[in-house]
Formats: sequence, structure tokens, C-alpha cells
Amino acid sequence: MRLARLGERGAEIPVVFDGERALDLRPLIADLDGAALAPASLERIASAVAAGELAELERAEALRRGAPIARPGAILCIGMNYAAHAAESGSEPPAIPILFLKVPSTVGGPDDEVEIPRGSTTTDWEVELGVVIGTRALYLDSPADARAHIAGYVAANDLSERDWQLKQSGGQWSKGKIAPGFSPLGPWLVTGDEVDPQALRLRSWVNGEPRQDSTTADMVFDVDHLVWHLSQYVALEPGDVILTGTPEGVALSGRFPYLAPGDVVEIEIEGLGRQRQTYRAHEEARR
Amino acid sequence: MRLARLGERGAEIPVVFDGERALDLRPLIADLDGAALAPASLERIASAVAAGELAELERAEALRRGAPIARPGAILCIGMNYAAHAAESGSEPPAIPILFLKVPSTVGGPDDEVEIPRGSTTTDWEVELGVVIGTRALYLDSPADARAHIAGYVAANDLSERDWQLKQSGGQWSKGKIAPGFSPLGPWLVTGDEVDPQALRLRSWVNGEPRQDSTTADMVFDVDHLVWHLSQYVALEPGDVILTGTPEGVALSGRFPYLAPGDVVEIEIEGLGRQRQTYRAHEEARR
Repeated sequence: MRLARLGERGAEIPVVFDGERALDLRPLIADLDGAALAPASLERIASAVAAGELAELERAEALRRGAPIARPGAILCIGMNYAAHAAESGSEPPAIPILFLKVPSTVGGPDDEVEIPRGSTTTDWEVELGVVIGTRALYLDSPADARAHIAGYVAANDLSERDWQLKQSGGQWSKGKIAPGFSPLGPWLVTGDEVDPQALRLRSWVNGEPRQDSTTADMVFDVDHLVWHLSQYVALEPGDVILTGTPEGVALSGRFPYLAPGDVVEIEIEGLGRQRQTYRAHEEARR
Repeated sequence: MRLARLGERGAEIPVVFDGERALDLRPLIADLDGAALAPASLERIASAVAAGELAELERAEALRRGAPIARPGAILCIGMNYAAHAAESGSEPPAIPILFLKVPSTVGGPDDEVEIPRGSTTTDWEVELGVVIGTRALYLDSPADARAHIAGYVAANDLSERDWQLKQSGGQWSKGKIAPGFSPLGPWLVTGDEVDPQALRLRSWVNGEPRQDSTTADMVFDVDHLVWHLSQYVALEPGDVILTGTPEGVALSGRFPYLAPGDVVEIEIEGLGRQRQTYRAHEEARR
């Protein structure tokens, strides 16, 4: 299933797509949150679609596309998970997954305008496969147990302010990862039964010029390994999002300029949809 | 005001203390969350206490003490914010605040039993002053603006698994900070009008033996500076918690053993109450 949330920020309507028709999920769930992503809930949604019980949402195509998951509790991010990106960042591929965290206030819709933070000169894009947790995972026995805890997948842009990430926090990266709107998610959450997470082309463009073009087959640590590994350290909870790292082709490489006001970033992951964000300068009036 | 949440996990009742009497806040608020901590809400609570409108909660002293804030959206942590602790950790005092993050699933009540994570041999305590945000803060003009955004203060134990923090994530600390129950908070949230955050003695004990004994006057970056500084990087939201760093006297120093099953950790911050946690071994049956 393809799930989404449509409408203005804070008032998004949960929907499921039946072909191109957006079906209103409000008779079944309040929002696409952790509870709605439990296996029994997803089964109920699938049954309702099959039985033709859900009404089409009127004028859905005219609505803003929101993040396809209501505010996650945790956003867990994996660093340097593609060897070529580690190399362009001046690092060796890691021997163990590198974890850092973002905060929920970074989440935005896939096409929302993004403000370049005040004073930023090194805002950078990162297309990433996002994994959405469906059931609590703690101390999993093996990577083979991971899939049962995954509700689905989303496209994500893990935006980064490189100076703040690398130079303004004693080496801890999070300070450059948490500006408002720095985690565009979506447009869709596609359920796990329809996705092979290790066979997806993922790409990004700036102003129409290609930047990243790789495949999730190149991950250093695959999705199942990451979910299993993280579960040894943290209780993954329904609605949590794992961002699985970005491939080569970001501005940090020195091959491309950082983002400037007026730039348009597009990212796309095969089967998970395409994002398009315009970047704007910080405006005092907006705070 | 002293605010608290009493009762079993997931069913805590918000209360305000009038002397030793716990007054039931449920007629006014659903829970002690970000919305309940807005200035207008806190004023309404204060008025209700003064007017004698709130009923005493029966048998309050027999109830479990929960974290005094419902699940925060973000837990923002400052590293190396006391010079003597930086020294015992082998570091210079930082020139700029070091930020790392924890996840909401780490939050526990002040006296909850804490499980030493599976495989951990280096679980360590850290008494810290916690700052709870009351109104959104982004791009504050100066540290003098910080207080208006602070709802109050809590005692916190920023538990850490040192090997995981320092050796198992390429230098990113969060992996050693996010085990279940690794952020005991409380017992109370004391509103900002009653606290001078830079004049608080903060102490910890293990099995009754003193470990940490310092004052928040020794912070490298004070609370107002931290709130102002963080607001340049992130939108601080109501209910977010900032853990402001720990003073010297932790096991990482080499002067004390790490925590073992059966150990009892107590922490206390002047005016903010005292925590007491018993540590237990990981039990397979509990997962």
C-alpha cells in the first residue's frame, strides 16, 4: 500500500492510494502515527480498500503533500553507509554502523519550501532511504528478525549544515542536522510487502542537474542489519524513522556548490516517489 | 510551583504540590506536556491553587513517582559543560557548546528500576540539571531572552554506556546514551520563578558513597547561554528538555567502578528533589 498525508501542516488527512485515487482513512485512523502502523492496523486498512469501504478524498491532487508519517518519536540516522560517500567525505567505510540523531521538529513535507538557516553557508542535500518502524524492536536475535518490525519505507532528504555538523560541536554531528524543515519525508510511505529495500535506485538533482545516482544495493550495512544492530542499543518504537545514509554526490565532496536561495532540490527513490523543494533565505519576519 | 506525575507508567496523574499536599490537576490539563507548560497554562494552575479549587489526590504518597513531564519531543544534551568533568574525561573545556541527542524512549521515573543493557560493562551515572522549554525558541537575540522560554527545571540522570558512546559509533556519542530507561527525570518539575539555575548544589551517590558534589555555578556555558545558543541551530519546542552537562565524579574518570546489578544510584539537585534507582541485570524474559 501507498499511504500519505494530505493537507496543510498540522491538519493533514491520512489517505491510502488505490491506483491514482486517494481514499480517506479517517474512518479507520486518526493519523498515520505509530499506532496506525501496527500490523493489525495495516491489515484493517488493506481489507477496507479491498472491500471498497473507503470514500475517495475530494480534490486530493490540489492538497499539499505532508510528511507521510505524523511526528516520529525518534529519527535515527546512519552515517557513512555508502563507501563512495565515505570516501568523498574523507573517511574510510565504517566497521560498525555510525549513529546520530535528529529531532522531530525537522520533519517537513516532501515539497515544502525549506529555509536555509540564518548564517548558513554550507547547507547540503542527502537523498536517503527511510525505514519506518511498525512494532517495537529491542534486542533482536538476528537481522532475519528485522522485517517483522518494519512498517514500510519513505524517501527522505537528510539536510545538513556542514560547518555546524563538523566544526561547531566538538565533532558531534547533530548540531548541523536539526534546523527546522531539515528532514523532508515522503511523499509516500510504501508498506514493506511492496518494497525490496536493497534494490532501489536513489537520485537527487539541484536545479535540474544530477547530483546523486546510486542504488541501495551499495549500502555498507543493509536495512536488516541496521534494524537488528540498533535494537541492541535502543528500543525502536512504532513510528520511529531510521535514515539509512546517503550515497556520493553531495556538496561536501567539493564537486558542487552548497545550496543558495532560489535553488530547487529534487530527490527520488524508485517506487517511493519524488520530492521537490525550493530553498529560500532566512527572513527575520518568519521567526 | 512543584509539578509532578504520579502513578503507573503510561497512566500518570498530573499534580501540583501545595506544601506536602498533592493536588490533582486533571480538571485543568490532560497531562504535563508541552501545552500544559505554556505560560498561560501555568498561570491558570497557579490561580487554581491559590483559589483552593483543586482537590487533593488521595493516597498520593503511595503512588509511583513518574517523570514530571510527559514524553518530550527532543532531549538535547550538552557535553563537557563542567571543566573538571572535561578534565577527568581527558578533554579540554570546549570553546563552544557540544550537543548530542537522546530519544524519548529513554525517559523514566526518578525511582524506576533501571536495567543495565545486555552486554554492558560500562554503564555510568551523570547527575544533571534539566531545563524544560515552555515556549518555542528559535533565533533568540541574546541569552537575556532565554528565561522567557523556560517553563522550569528537573533533576536528571543522563545514563551512559561508555564503550558504546566512545568506541562503537565512529565517535558519535548517542549510541551509548539511548538504552531504555537511560534518562530518569524528576521527581519534580519546579517552575522557573522558584529556581536560580546557576546556584544549585548537585550530587550523586552509589550505594550511599558520594560520587559527584558540585554546583551549577561551575558550568562552562550557563543555562541562558545554552538556550540562546541552541536556538540558533534548532527550534526548541514546548516540552523539550535540555540536559546541561554533568560535573566530575563519574566512573569514566577511572576513580570508581561502573554500575553492577544490585547497585543503588541516588542523585539530588538542591530544590529539585532526589532520585533513587536500583540497577538490575538484563533478563531475557523482560524483552
